[in-house]
Amino acid sequence: MRVLLALGGNAMTAADGRARPEDQIAAAEVAMESVADLVNRDIDVVITHGNGPQVGNLLVKNELAATVVPPVPLDWCGAQTQATLGFILMDALDAALARRGSTRRSATVVTRTRVDADDPGFSRLTKPIGRFLSKEDAEPMIEHGETWEDRGEKGWRRMVASPAPQEILDAPTVSALVDAGFVVVANGGGGIPVVREDGGLRGVEAVIDKDLGADLLARTVGADVLVIATDVPHAVLRFGTPEAEPLGRVPVGRLRDLAAEGHFASGSMGPKVDAVCRFVERGGQYAVISNLDNIVDAVDGNAGTVVVPG
Amino acid sequence: MRVLLALGGNAMTAADGRARPEDQIAAAEVAMESVADLVNRDIDVVITHGNGPQVGNLLVKNELAATVVPPVPLDWCGAQTQATLGFILMDALDAALARRGSTRRSATVVTRTRVDADDPGFSRLTKPIGRFLSKEDAEPMIEHGETWEDRGEKGWRRMVASPAPQEILDAPTVSALVDAGFVVVANGGGGIPVVREDGGLRGVEAVIDKDLGADLLARTVGADVLVIATDVPHAVLRFGTPEAEPLGRVPVGRLRDLAAEGHFASGSMGPKVDAVCRFVERGGQYAVISNLDNIVDAVDGNAGTVVVPG
Repeated sequence: MRVLLALGGNAMTAADGRARPEDQIAAAEVAMESVADLVNRDIDVVITHGNGPQVGNLLVKNELAATVVPPVPLDWCGAQTQATLGFILMDALDAALARRGSTRRSATVVTRTRVDADDPGFSRLTKPIGRFLSKEDAEPMIEHGETWEDRGEKGWRRMVASPAPQEILDAPTVSALVDAGFVVVANGGGGIPVVREDGGLRGVEAVIDKDLGADLLARTVGADVLVIATDVPHAVLRFGTPEAEPLGRVPVGRLRDLAAEGHFASGSMGPKVDAVCRFVERGGQYAVISNLDNIVDAVDGNAGTVVVPG
Repeated sequence: MRVLLALGGNAMTAADGRARPEDQIAAAEVAMESVADLVNRDIDVVITHGNGPQVGNLLVKNELAATVVPPVPLDWCGAQTQATLGFILMDALDAALARRGSTRRSATVVTRTRVDADDPGFSRLTKPIGRFLSKEDAEPMIEHGETWEDRGEKGWRRMVASPAPQEILDAPTVSALVDAGFVVVANGGGGIPVVREDGGLRGVEAVIDKDLGADLLARTVGADVLVIATDVPHAVLRFGTPEAEPLGRVPVGRLRDLAAEGHFASGSMGPKVDAVCRFVERGGQYAVISNLDNIVDAVDGNAGTVVVPG
């Protein structure tokens, strides 16, 4: 069995949301214990991860050092998090595998994902990113060409493009390594967004939705099951109301209907629901949304919101 | 034929030493034209690269944003540069290969390199890194536990450990991909330094010499030839004097003697000479030190300082 496991960027931080290096390492160690258990059952696991809090930190560094060192664009920030999260996940996983007497090895692939240069996401910026600033502090960035939006009492926030992933360019690398027995970390942050241009490739300032990237990678590498591990155990109907109801096993058609009724917030559960639906609609056996603590049961279809054909 | 090509970190910047993203992309595009020519001759090329200027920039960002976002340690900075340089090298190489009608693909491997926790490099810090500061500006960092040294009229500079690389932990990943036909970028900056500890792996604050890392990677993946591409066309005897003499073809025993006589500066040409000697002494066919413009001729042994057995 081949499983694509998507770890939330927020799941790779401390409980209070801080993303110090030690917080990320501690979170990686917890998650990789479950992955090592899966690998020891001879399941091929491909891991991807979010990077929202980590990219947020890098953007602040860009901003505060801009007069001294050249800022790097958003695609570079995403690349940076692929390597840092990749190597701490590998360190944690290799140790967990060694404790179980496994000879399997981990690998991290720097992964580019192609988007369309004319994706509507580039004209309508929908993804808020980084820290909130006052209008005054945001203005120099706006003069530099960035788009910032008044987000109410918390302040202003940068908005960036979130184009749809079209092709995992480095999927052949991932497949070659999975076939050779490696537990592969790939496509972090949804992939480094690049466009084709004049016969070449060029990184673009955008953030690909991690969950849609996970679905595309899962299908590209022929995963049987997609598991999205987030910070809640289920997708929930009527979330935040007295009638809130966690969703267990659900046919994909019914989940699409519920999504159309507006049960899932566009910035958080919405893309996860869309990703698991796409995966099952296009031939995946089943897909699961659950939390980090339940990864092993989720892979077996025994925890979380389990989306099945039908 | 299998070739390990090591690109200098300074060679991946603009001529004036600036390391803006566009400078690094332009340098990558130039270098990858030569690599594509080699690949088109059916040579297996493994690429590694330095990262001194790039890590220097990241350390400044750490410093200037430290009150707002958590700084990341030196091993994380090294990891970050593996992904950014890796993906721009891939973009440039894939385009150059496509223009030549080649179906070969590139891949970038996040690479950890094991060092010994009791390496003497950890007690005697020899590697200067990052920008120069006044004594006053360096003092807060010294109070935070960093080592800074008075480097004369330019000011104070941070000194870090430069332990010897013992084992390229992710070499099996590199080998699997090379065997599958990929042009692999790996072990950037000499590798992310990690130590074994309590049965696990832990990143450490250090910088592995990129050239010694290149030698170890070359031998580990069974390269026939090691080429170190830097910003000068040859190693030079009596460098900077009226009797300066570029070194062409030279037996490794003779080069060791010249090194012992003190011809090569410890911070620049010294480690490159040491790396090429090690490679040839341990069974490599030949090794070359030359500049980026001469990569193709250097691989053929027809340019630069060509070190042969004997």
